[in-house]
Amino acid sequence: MTTDLPPLTTTDRTTVRRAPARATDDRAEAYAILDEGRVAHVGFVSDGSPVVIPLAYGRDGDRLLLHAARASRLARTLAGGAPVCVTVTLLDAMVLARSTFHHSMNYRSVAILGTATAIEGEEEQRRALDVLVDHLVPGRAAEARPPNRAELRQTMVLTLPIEEASVKRRTGGPIDDPEDLGLAVWCGVVPLRAIAGRPEPAGDLLPGSPLPVALAAWGTDAGR
Amino acid sequence: MTTDLPPLTTTDRTTVRRAPARATDDRAEAYAILDEGRVAHVGFVSDGSPVVIPLAYGRDGDRLLLHAARASRLARTLAGGAPVCVTVTLLDAMVLARSTFHHSMNYRSVAILGTATAIEGEEEQRRALDVLVDHLVPGRAAEARPPNRAELRQTMVLTLPIEEASVKRRTGGPIDDPEDLGLAVWCGVVPLRAIAGRPEPAGDLLPGSPLPVALAAWGTDAGR
Repeated sequence: MTTDLPPLTTTDRTTVRRAPARATDDRAEAYAILDEGRVAHVGFVSDGSPVVIPLAYGRDGDRLLLHAARASRLARTLAGGAPVCVTVTLLDAMVLARSTFHHSMNYRSVAILGTATAIEGEEEQRRALDVLVDHLVPGRAAEARPPNRAELRQTMVLTLPIEEASVKRRTGGPIDDPEDLGLAVWCGVVPLRAIAGRPEPAGDLLPGSPLPVALAAWGTDAGR
Repeated sequence: MTTDLPPLTTTDRTTVRRAPARATDDRAEAYAILDEGRVAHVGFVSDGSPVVIPLAYGRDGDRLLLHAARASRLARTLAGGAPVCVTVTLLDAMVLARSTFHHSMNYRSVAILGTATAIEGEEEQRRALDVLVDHLVPGRAAEARPPNRAELRQTMVLTLPIEEASVKRRTGGPIDDPEDLGLAVWCGVVPLRAIAGRPEPAGDLLPGSPLPVALAAWGTDAGR
């Protein structure tokens, strides 16, 4: 993939040392992974121990957006300037080789390191929350009731620059040792895919509430 | 869910403070999540910074198994006794509420804290690698060519006790504020599922190689 976007910054912390052929600093590829993923694993250090928490996220240009309850340990730690590592991983396939050793997974992942900054200012916070909810379901921010002042006060939205980052991925079939090629052991890949099922409307849905535009576009027909 | 298994150990580090109703120390539920997941996000501290890496894993009773190239930073750090946090997350649904604020995800996750130990001894290492490959595709260890001495030397298998751990999950539909119930905004859940597609045999597959038993059982018919 070639783009006109500036490359990601690789530092000693983000240089991929194992299987470097699987690494890239291509910013467009990082964005594509982030836009396809639904959950990030957010790592920080608490009392000397690592903590890894699954979290929804969004992307606003060259910034990753996270949000958390303002009173949470996560929000307080990150807003306090603690270093953070945010990793998003997509699994694409299981890779079955003739040997146990060469079994693998096809995947695409981005790891972003840095420090996050809390968004202050109601308008910027509103815009960031729109990006977060639109990441879940595109166009949803325009359909749902916007946050009120009390909700904004409870929520901390944080930005993390997508700058010191690395992309790693594996594609293709199994790579067996030449001496194993004569073995009658099945080998190949089994694709994996995350799919969205038929929307299930809430029991107290008001009749006549239109199905979200994005869900209709996903080819579902339920819930109107 | 009730079981006869002893509960997980909650410590100050693993006590869930936000939305504690979503937390449990049920060991069987932790095992079910670990057995269903395919990738773990492994967090450790390197030069004071958190690092989060996606990794395949397996479960051997009350121990989590990880493996890495013996020369990797990950293997050296973990075998050196550094504290580690291993998190496995399953996404079950997007939850659409009438308000932006109450949008959510249904998920199940386990976070395990502790220190890992490298397995020494060829037989135990072989058995652990079998568990790891069988986690990917049940029964696969008996089908593929077992590791040779050189491969065993290159691979470090680590065990992490499933003891200091927490399970967190959200289920069910959106929880809207009473004053929003009259809004004609669609609300409900959109189920998410990870599915395995049709196996794609390698181009150089030896004719007559039988499809792995587990893949056949998954209802696929390709690749023989």
